Amino acid sequence: MTAHFQFEIGKTHLLKLEPGDDILESITAFARDRDIRAGWINFLGAVQRASLRYYDQDAREYRDFTLDRHLEVLSGVGNISLLDGKPFVHIHAAFGDDGGAAYGGHIDVGCIAFLIEVRIDELIGDPPVRQFDEKVSLPTWAG
Amino acid sequence: MTAHFQFEIGKTHLLKLEPGDDILESITAFARDRDIRAGWINFLGAVQRASLRYYDQDAREYRDFTLDRHLEVLSGVGNISLLDGKPFVHIHAAFGDDGGAAYGGHIDVGCIAFLIEVRIDELIGDPPVRQFDEKVSLPTWAG
Amino acid sequence: MTAHFQFEIGKTHLLKLEPGDDILESITAFARDRDIRAGWINFLGAVQRASLRYYDQDAREYRDFTLDRHLEVLSGVGNISLLDGKPFVHIHAAFGDDGGAAYGGHIDVGCIAFLIEVRIDELIGDPPVRQFDEKVSLPTWAG
Repeated sequence: MTAHFQFEIGKTHLLKLEPGDDILESITAFARDRDIRAGWINFLGAVQRASLRYYDQDAREYRDFTLDRHLEVLSGVGNISLLDGKPFVHIHAAFGDDGGAAYGGHIDVGCIAFLIEVRIDELIGDPPVRQFDEKVSLPTWAG
Repeated sequence: MTAHFQFEIGKTHLLKLEPGDDILESITAFARDRDIRAGWINFLGAVQRASLRYYDQDAREYRDFTLDRHLEVLSGVGNISLLDGKPFVHIHAAFGDDGGAAYGGHIDVGCIAFLIEVRIDELIGDPPVRQFDEKVSLPTWAG
Repeated sequence: MTAHFQFEIGKTHLLKLEPGDDILESITAFARDRDIRAGWINFLGAVQRASLRYYDQDAREYRDFTLDRHLEVLSGVGNISLLDGKPFVHIHAAFGDDGGAAYGGHIDVGCIAFLIEVRIDELIGDPPVRQFDEKVSLPTWAG
């Protein structure tokens, strides 16, 4: 463990996303509109389609893939921190299909809600700041 | 985003469900006994069997299926809001089998605990109220 | 439901785990260093490999298995309570591979972070105490 941040919990928000809402864009817009600089995200629901990413740890690049069908959202987990001075949203999610099989990855733009119920907790304290981290070639919380 | 609700976090509860306890019925009974009108649910554990639902977004109806075997519960995510004036519980969960493969869906009556550890957060503020929403043909939080 | 514990939420921590950090050992060390006796855990990220367990409910023993490849962490859910007087960490997680397929189980020592972002909530109140529970042959929260 190389970075630790301590907070008091602030306001808790529940949001409903509707058919056609992009999950990543909607949550990012909410965080930026309210200047939520540190937060935690949890959600469930269903999507019309999912655009996901898998990070290739050897090649140090994302591989993108799409699940172009209707899926339940079994769980969404993510956070809000700062990147380039602005609230930045990082989310992973698990999905289930009509036979119950599960899938998942890093949420990209293109995960389109059918119905999503989101909890966002504001965290009160110095926000984590993402900086390029050569250990993983990704912007991670600076310690 | 068409509905937004803001809360202060209230009491946090941890519950243990035992062999034979129905997950949805047990959490619903807890919420109604204590009149928890807005809340968030998270859990892990194991089940003896799982009764799940997948919502067919075209036909606008649930398709039910059963995983009639012992499974780990990888994650459970849900919430408490009001439907017909009473606390109503909505939960999705992901499960893992003896080979590590994952499954999941909307939790129906018939998900029977082997051992479940639940967190329920009470949310203090005007509770979301579910009303029939013709966009999805389901009772969703009215804006 | 045979055990219920009520808390006020305390401090919330965000932690970053880095390449090579063991998830279970890192979170356990954090909980013991700070004497967090009751808490809730949620995380996302990616691992270099995963060592998991499935509990055989009939044989009353764990079956261990390893996913020896790079995986996204779709969700991690767990808690901190007391076992033998010390903070004890119990976590389940779901993982996704490069094709989006999902896996999961009970987190054992040997789940090695590539990058993990963890939330830990301290819970203020009488901590749950794990005692051997003959109903499941595991140490569960005593009522």
